[in-house]
Amino acid sequence: MQRPSGRNFDQLRDIRLTRHYTKHAEGSVLVEFGETRVICTASVDSGVPRFLRGEGRGWITAEYGMLPRSTGSRMNREAARGKQGGRTVEIQRLIGRSLRAAVDLEALGENTVTIDCDVIQADGGTRTAAITGACVALADALGQMQRDKLVPADPLKTLIASVSVGLYEGQPVLDLDYLEDSNAQTDMNIVMAENGAIVEIQGTAEADPFSEAEFAAMFGLAKQGIVELNRLQREALA
Amino acid sequence: MQRPSGRNFDQLRDIRLTRHYTKHAEGSVLVEFGETRVICTASVDSGVPRFLRGEGRGWITAEYGMLPRSTGSRMNREAARGKQGGRTVEIQRLIGRSLRAAVDLEALGENTVTIDCDVIQADGGTRTAAITGACVALADALGQMQRDKLVPADPLKTLIASVSVGLYEGQPVLDLDYLEDSNAQTDMNIVMAENGAIVEIQGTAEADPFSEAEFAAMFGLAKQGIVELNRLQREALA
Amino acid sequence: MQRPSGRNFDQLRDIRLTRHYTKHAEGSVLVEFGETRVICTASVDSGVPRFLRGEGRGWITAEYGMLPRSTGSRMNREAARGKQGGRTVEIQRLIGRSLRAAVDLEALGENTVTIDCDVIQADGGTRTAAITGACVALADALGQMQRDKLVPADPLKTLIASVSVGLYEGQPVLDLDYLEDSNAQTDMNIVMAENGAIVEIQGTAEADPFSEAEFAAMFGLAKQGIVELNRLQREALA
Amino acid sequence: MQRPSGRNFDQLRDIRLTRHYTKHAEGSVLVEFGETRVICTASVDSGVPRFLRGEGRGWITAEYGMLPRSTGSRMNREAARGKQGGRTVEIQRLIGRSLRAAVDLEALGENTVTIDCDVIQADGGTRTAAITGACVALADALGQMQRDKLVPADPLKTLIASVSVGLYEGQPVLDLDYLEDSNAQTDMNIVMAENGAIVEIQGTAEADPFSEAEFAAMFGLAKQGIVELNRLQREALA
Amino acid sequence: MQRPSGRNFDQLRDIRLTRHYTKHAEGSVLVEFGETRVICTASVDSGVPRFLRGEGRGWITAEYGMLPRSTGSRMNREAARGKQGGRTVEIQRLIGRSLRAAVDLEALGENTVTIDCDVIQADGGTRTAAITGACVALADALGQMQRDKLVPADPLKTLIASVSVGLYEGQPVLDLDYLEDSNAQTDMNIVMAENGAIVEIQGTAEADPFSEAEFAAMFGLAKQGIVELNRLQREALA
Amino acid sequence: MQRPSGRNFDQLRDIRLTRHYTKHAEGSVLVEFGETRVICTASVDSGVPRFLRGEGRGWITAEYGMLPRSTGSRMNREAARGKQGGRTVEIQRLIGRSLRAAVDLEALGENTVTIDCDVIQADGGTRTAAITGACVALADALGQMQRDKLVPADPLKTLIASVSVGLYEGQPVLDLDYLEDSNAQTDMNIVMAENGAIVEIQGTAEADPFSEAEFAAMFGLAKQGIVELNRLQREALA
Repeated sequence: MQRPSGRNFDQLRDIRLTRHYTKHAEGSVLVEFGETRVICTASVDSGVPRFLRGEGRGWITAEYGMLPRSTGSRMNREAARGKQGGRTVEIQRLIGRSLRAAVDLEALGENTVTIDCDVIQADGGTRTAAITGACVALADALGQMQRDKLVPADPLKTLIASVSVGLYEGQPVLDLDYLEDSNAQTDMNIVMAENGAIVEIQGTAEADPFSEAEFAAMFGLAKQGIVELNRLQREALA
Repeated sequence: MQRPSGRNFDQLRDIRLTRHYTKHAEGSVLVEFGETRVICTASVDSGVPRFLRGEGRGWITAEYGMLPRSTGSRMNREAARGKQGGRTVEIQRLIGRSLRAAVDLEALGENTVTIDCDVIQADGGTRTAAITGACVALADALGQMQRDKLVPADPLKTLIASVSVGLYEGQPVLDLDYLEDSNAQTDMNIVMAENGAIVEIQGTAEADPFSEAEFAAMFGLAKQGIVELNRLQREALA
Repeated sequence: MQRPSGRNFDQLRDIRLTRHYTKHAEGSVLVEFGETRVICTASVDSGVPRFLRGEGRGWITAEYGMLPRSTGSRMNREAARGKQGGRTVEIQRLIGRSLRAAVDLEALGENTVTIDCDVIQADGGTRTAAITGACVALADALGQMQRDKLVPADPLKTLIASVSVGLYEGQPVLDLDYLEDSNAQTDMNIVMAENGAIVEIQGTAEADPFSEAEFAAMFGLAKQGIVELNRLQREALA
Repeated sequence: MQRPSGRNFDQLRDIRLTRHYTKHAEGSVLVEFGETRVICTASVDSGVPRFLRGEGRGWITAEYGMLPRSTGSRMNREAARGKQGGRTVEIQRLIGRSLRAAVDLEALGENTVTIDCDVIQADGGTRTAAITGACVALADALGQMQRDKLVPADPLKTLIASVSVGLYEGQPVLDLDYLEDSNAQTDMNIVMAENGAIVEIQGTAEADPFSEAEFAAMFGLAKQGIVELNRLQREALA
Repeated sequence: MQRPSGRNFDQLRDIRLTRHYTKHAEGSVLVEFGETRVICTASVDSGVPRFLRGEGRGWITAEYGMLPRSTGSRMNREAARGKQGGRTVEIQRLIGRSLRAAVDLEALGENTVTIDCDVIQADGGTRTAAITGACVALADALGQMQRDKLVPADPLKTLIASVSVGLYEGQPVLDLDYLEDSNAQTDMNIVMAENGAIVEIQGTAEADPFSEAEFAAMFGLAKQGIVELNRLQREALA
Repeated sequence: MQRPSGRNFDQLRDIRLTRHYTKHAEGSVLVEFGETRVICTASVDSGVPRFLRGEGRGWITAEYGMLPRSTGSRMNREAARGKQGGRTVEIQRLIGRSLRAAVDLEALGENTVTIDCDVIQADGGTRTAAITGACVALADALGQMQRDKLVPADPLKTLIASVSVGLYEGQPVLDLDYLEDSNAQTDMNIVMAENGAIVEIQGTAEADPFSEAEFAAMFGLAKQGIVELNRLQREALA
């Protein structure tokens, strides 16, 4: 089997994490998974949503968007249509849940960090890139909170990263680009912590259900990819 | 460990599938997972959404809702608020994707089946009950299409069913009710076909990431539960 | 004249009122007028809307919805369309106004009861069934409030019930089903209290205005039907 | 009993109907019921809504609005809030239904007349003024259609008019202004044709149900008021 | 060059300002620029928007709308469509900004004046008529506030008025009506204070950019028109 | 007078125009006016909006947005709020109008170019940067259309550019950054063609009206700035 991208089945795309990409946000990272480029910012606010008030815990929430022409043909602008699409909602909920698992919400105090992930160029894997980049932006924002004495210690429990795996022509492959993803039989996104623990698994049979053995093979690839992504995150944060 | 429900760790709630629950829909099932009750209807229309026209294939789509007082405290009515919440959107996308994997869309022709899952009483596991019940409603609707000569053969490739598993006080348990779910560390929903192949896996660490071993234990429980659910679906359809 | 339903001109459909239909709401009734089935719940909240604060009076409000496939052909889901239709708004305002006339709002104190009427199967007369069933759910909720010491005495002043009357082939008939309603020249919905006093009259000439004599004949039928409905409500509440 | 307005119990306010009030619409009437002032326009379009296409019949529809400061304290602008309120929806449906009963829709052919009723000053009875004025605007628009040879004969079957009646300090009174309406126990709006046939009755007990005898007294007053309104409509159209 | 309206190039239409046009608002003016007719009301509320609270300053804001049949062919009602169009938003922002420049917001105290401009008949120049009329309504409302002792002195710093100028067949012309505006190459709206100072300039090349000399000629005409409008405003307020 | 930025009164910020910034759009430019950074894409579609069909002319339209954290404090995401704000609507209409004046719409044929301007970092002057950058993206897209034989000749009539001018401490200054803009008495945005003709002028007195002499001084500065911007556009396109 030859991947359209020419990569080995277990090879990530070129990954780049550029910190301090914009100047206003407490954390701001441009993440690139090959030609997929996402701006991730982390914004700190005091206070928490109503359902958490007085609990002494903080909150992490996320929003996701794509520039209308980040894709091959122009999509409608969600702000002009007046609502976010189902895919957008699903992705931003995934990002928020994943990052909450990385943070000690008690240690965060009654503060909220809002993650914004905006795709400026899409080539497959925007949600995994977003999670991986957003975690670095979050780390920066939490660092800033410590320097500003808003929290006494670092609320970050672990880095998390995310990668996609799929079955392409029956073979498990790591980190699918758009062309590979469009032709894959299965699409799985995995979010893991640095110690190999699982934060989220979302696997979807595009047309035909897949077997436990295929699942295991894909899962193994993902683990390996995430180890590499965690290494790149640590390097960027150094 | 003692489950709040008093069930064994690997025990489903009482499951009931009542076909022909309402009279207008081509398929109409009341599904009960213990005290969780969901009305699932399958409605047949000729034609497909714009993006599929002329492809010779059909489409399955799903919508999900909860009656405002299906829950312990009244929720706002989404129709009155003017938008569906993120959780609703996420669930109805899951139901639609799962059922599409059960059907040979070519064999369906350019027809659409719309699944509606409306929760009239919620006690945990509404999405897994909805998928399990909706598959029976879908089977009925596809049967009706055959009798009406709208399709030459049955487009249903397999039954699918869904169940939740979680870690409760560190132990894997099957089919969590609301009380158990609220206190679980992990929440996983699995959709499988009759041959044990995986249609969807969605696992979420509520606060702390979980290990591969825990994942494997939960997955094993889910498989066993789905075998039983498939048996009950076949029985109902007999 | 022969009614499509085969009933006498002054004959109600089979009426069933099932209390405690769902478990969470303070009042929960399944009402059936023949094949029309509506779930009516009454939910109690402390506090009142802003325009009533500090007045020492309570409030009753109502919302109405139809499951998308409660009807012969599937309707769009209002939550997905992002707004309630004009008919929905008109009906829920009617339900709310009618029930407020049944309650001593001073005696209710600064509490709100929200009525939800959700049609799970429609066969004509959903609004009259909804009002008749909702009044029983409301009675249950107010009873619960007394047991919970939220109100010192029962705020319910009277039961109210509602029925439709129409002119079918020039003849007044009681409690029209869908087939009759579709072919009626006039459609009138009447809400009355147990003592025969009028709560709401809404009469509409579908195409041709109707005479006072026709009005009087229809009104007489409605009175008789409501006496029977009040009897069935009392029986259910016994 | 002394009415706040000083009028006799059976006395209409000063009624004025000014035709050709604005220049663009096929029919345009300023209607004044005392200090209540409503601009009613009737706009002709070829074609009918989708559900009527190919049936050979026309359609009459209506929209209603209030200028934000037509009332004592400024209301929010519905266009800015992004939705029409329940009262607006209810009123515009009433106006549309009432006017459809006045027209032979077959004779109208596949044309639509859209009625717009915009309240520029409100002092009670805006819906009855709107219906009464809109019927004159409609008559003008249908006359224009005849002159333009869009219809072979006048589709107007009858003039219709509308008036409110209520119980004020236990006494039936005709055509309530704002002050009277705010203090009335009952509010009834009646729409009738020139021959005394009933087009719509909408009676609402504000707090206490009312008796048949009270209904009859109010109805009698309304009939008398509508005879006078029809006379003024004919005078205006002469 | 002959203008379609037959007016001289530097001639305003007949301008009429009718104060106290409706009874509820603190200021209410019907402004007519020829056949363009706009109802302008100014409504006083205590308090200011959130972003100004505690600053000791007041606020002026404006909303604009057109009756659906104020125009040659019926426009959709914005309240029914569920949103205000881009042109509406642009115009109401212009009106609000312009009037804020006429008022000493400190002297207004923490009060808000809301301007509503509703076009009942459109024939070009609705925004300039609206500003010119709204300033008179605002003056009346501020006068009322003084009489009510809500402000110690008149917060109005200057009258402002607005007029359009354009290039019609290459010639600058003043105060374009609809026919002229539809055929103009350039459309400029100017708002000025009584002392000739500029409040707003908005000039738009419809198709071809215009020269500085053309700009200067148009600007000169506008100044002259605004002197006349200010005179008419003073006359109306006398 | 010393500008906060330290620039001379007639000095632009560092301007950068980076073509081919993203890969999918027919034209894609990152424009930087100092720290203001905007991604401008131009997307080509065949066909025109309904109101232009069959006229043989093309259309240019624009949409504008800001990433939520492009600003000092996070703004709400318009897609999540469900509507575009008034400022957004005003700016995108300005961008669209300005670019239409740069293009021969007949020569464009029945094609639409959609401009998207998304601000990734805001520091004042986002609309002028957007217009200046979008014109370069548009030139690229029109060039691509020629290479693709979609148009026989270049529909671009002229480059246009835009800059802001204002009065800062009574002095006219060019190209205000955020700090300067927040403290300016007047804010004017000017769009001009290469030959010095005016495309749009929008001048707003923030609090106090400004004189003709001040206007003339600002206008002169703007002209000079636009000559420089046109030079940089030509350089980028070379």
